[in-house]
Amino acid sequence: MPIQVNASRLLDDLHTLATFTEPNTPGWTRRFPSEAYLGGRQWLRRKLEAEGLVTSLDAAGNLFGRREGREKLPPLLTGSHTDTVMGAGRYDGMLGVLGGLEAARCLREAGIALRHPLCVVDYFAEEANDYAIACMGSLALVGQFNREWLIRHVQGLTLERAIMEGGGLPERLGPPLMTSGDVAAHLELHIEQGPILDQHQVTLGAVDGIYGICRARIVLRGKENHAGTWPMDFRHDALAAAAQLIVAIESIARSEPRSVGTVGKLDVSPNQGNVIPGGVILMAEMRHLDMAILDRMWAAFMEKAQAACAERGVTMEVITSTRMDSVVAPDWLREIVLNVCRALDPQTMIVSSGAGHDTSYMSLIAPAAMIFVPSIDGRSHAPEENTLPEHLARGVQALAEVLVEIDQKLDS
Amino acid sequence: MPIQVNASRLLDDLHTLATFTEPNTPGWTRRFPSEAYLGGRQWLRRKLEAEGLVTSLDAAGNLFGRREGREKLPPLLTGSHTDTVMGAGRYDGMLGVLGGLEAARCLREAGIALRHPLCVVDYFAEEANDYAIACMGSLALVGQFNREWLIRHVQGLTLERAIMEGGGLPERLGPPLMTSGDVAAHLELHIEQGPILDQHQVTLGAVDGIYGICRARIVLRGKENHAGTWPMDFRHDALAAAAQLIVAIESIARSEPRSVGTVGKLDVSPNQGNVIPGGVILMAEMRHLDMAILDRMWAAFMEKAQAACAERGVTMEVITSTRMDSVVAPDWLREIVLNVCRALDPQTMIVSSGAGHDTSYMSLIAPAAMIFVPSIDGRSHAPEENTLPEHLARGVQALAEVLVEIDQKLDS
Repeated sequence: MPIQVNASRLLDDLHTLATFTEPNTPGWTRRFPSEAYLGGRQWLRRKLEAEGLVTSLDAAGNLFGRREGREKLPPLLTGSHTDTVMGAGRYDGMLGVLGGLEAARCLREAGIALRHPLCVVDYFAEEANDYAIACMGSLALVGQFNREWLIRHVQGLTLERAIMEGGGLPERLGPPLMTSGDVAAHLELHIEQGPILDQHQVTLGAVDGIYGICRARIVLRGKENHAGTWPMDFRHDALAAAAQLIVAIESIARSEPRSVGTVGKLDVSPNQGNVIPGGVILMAEMRHLDMAILDRMWAAFMEKAQAACAERGVTMEVITSTRMDSVVAPDWLREIVLNVCRALDPQTMIVSSGAGHDTSYMSLIAPAAMIFVPSIDGRSHAPEENTLPEHLARGVQALAEVLVEIDQKLDS
Repeated sequence: MPIQVNASRLLDDLHTLATFTEPNTPGWTRRFPSEAYLGGRQWLRRKLEAEGLVTSLDAAGNLFGRREGREKLPPLLTGSHTDTVMGAGRYDGMLGVLGGLEAARCLREAGIALRHPLCVVDYFAEEANDYAIACMGSLALVGQFNREWLIRHVQGLTLERAIMEGGGLPERLGPPLMTSGDVAAHLELHIEQGPILDQHQVTLGAVDGIYGICRARIVLRGKENHAGTWPMDFRHDALAAAAQLIVAIESIARSEPRSVGTVGKLDVSPNQGNVIPGGVILMAEMRHLDMAILDRMWAAFMEKAQAACAERGVTMEVITSTRMDSVVAPDWLREIVLNVCRALDPQTMIVSSGAGHDTSYMSLIAPAAMIFVPSIDGRSHAPEENTLPEHLARGVQALAEVLVEIDQKLDS
């Protein structure tokens, strides 16, 4: 029997989960640690159990729905998250969880019993939240949780307490909950959150990896002076130097295919119309899949930034900087994903994820890959977030077929 | 008998006036409409009367100290202001008022009786204040006061009331208090508030005029999107467009001698590190003495700005724009000022004022000129504002001698 996705069943689930929203918030908002989030997860747990999956929460609050396999092997994991940003849409994260559930249903209906156990996972608290921790469930799962975070509090609620209320066991966090060998593979279906597939009228993206990121908080210090009385030759204009930085980052990113570079945050001091800016604080970042290329881009940016500052007698200080490695799926797994997707849509594009996902952390302990479906107009993190039902269903179709292929490929 | 400035007497006056400061403010702060400002003006009024000048306040609160001349002629005015910005120094404005008083004293001591009456003037509320009106006394004097401003209020105090407390008659404001023919000439001694004279080790600046200003509040609208998932080709980055504007304004101003161009205020929306900026609001301005050159510079800036926006699919809207005419002293007056200054310091430089002054408005009804003395390190509007006592005295010397020259030149 062929695998047959039920699009309306999938859509029903997505739109039912979307009804769990925080009061007085725009769009479909369901943030950690709101009651709406906990309520949505209770509903989800019942849905998983109704499908015959055995549910459990790990110490990090990750929700698993497990079906045993034919052999004694580590499980195949597929999932994403059900928390959202403020003013969210209905697909980011939810598609990966409820699409995983739909895949499990389709496999059962098609009479396919996998060799490996299959776990549908709702990773805990993936979106950036007021505790300033993103991907909390997956990072804790792989042992990157810092126990000092537990005392952080938002409106009187400590993170420790919030994790407990989410069903986790904060006292166990710190060491990894799973390590290499505990997971056969991890797969995440997600909306693209960008315009590429939609613009090219392509229904599937075979994700070859997740961008690495170089990011820095940079302070430029010049000298504030009267904008009328101070000749150009005598100025130390921090904003003019910053402008050259922004131009440089855009130009470098434009000239390197499949890279991005952005200054998203910039604050001017004293920020008065008739005063030459004495100081600027900005956040600059660049992203690329190939860390060697990214490092080269970042070095070129730093060189241009320093030259722009030196020319103006402006000092530049990098206050904080981070360098996050890219994630690249193993060749065999990328090949499976691409072949399955190409069979469903010959126009399937190979794309990278520009945003981080739970897959970023899961890739540290298991072969991990992603599949994208289009976001109409590239909209995401907004109520307008949308994907055609047939594209949602095709994504689940690809997910289920890839799970079958992996199940056969591994250890064989 | 030669004119002989008494530097220590001048310095005593400056430093005594500086003691009238607002409590709990940095530097020497004496803003309109504080009690410190009114107290300083009462002290000044007694000083003017002690010199034998007859004092009066006009409807705009301008304080005059008048000595009659030998002939029945309109008066020569010399003055500036005694209000300050927050965190001010001791010379900006005060030098022009107390230097005018010292000039009157020196002329008397030298036995010089002018043909014209001489008025030492303390123009009312020159600095930008919380009512958002600069040069209030001089603009009201020449008939540019807008009566709608009277209802503006700061901490419960209407502007109408504040003018009354300053001794003015708000009901009379609107029409000009003086017109062409009422004033023989206006002269203002001021610190440069810039670095040019100090850097060139020159003690006097013969001011040929006050810059005109083109200024605009500009809104750039792009589209906010995820900084990771949005390829460079698809972006509408308002901050990247703004950066090109800033680069353009700096480059145009650098290539045109004796011009300045500045973006002093810039606000980004939503101003988050990982979001492509969807909007920018900025204040851009350019200044030059020659309005034809300034208009050409501004047009070149607008052209480059529009191209930078068009290239990125960013829209540009000029919300408010102002074009303030430059002030150029009549040739005969510039010649007198330059000759007197050159005789005192052969290195005297011809400079323009990059900032507005009461002279800007007084020039509308009378021949008007300015004399600058150096500001050490160009500092102004700061407690560190400083000028050597011998340079302050030389400025007053020039002022007194120019008054004598004008007195002889006019109507002769």
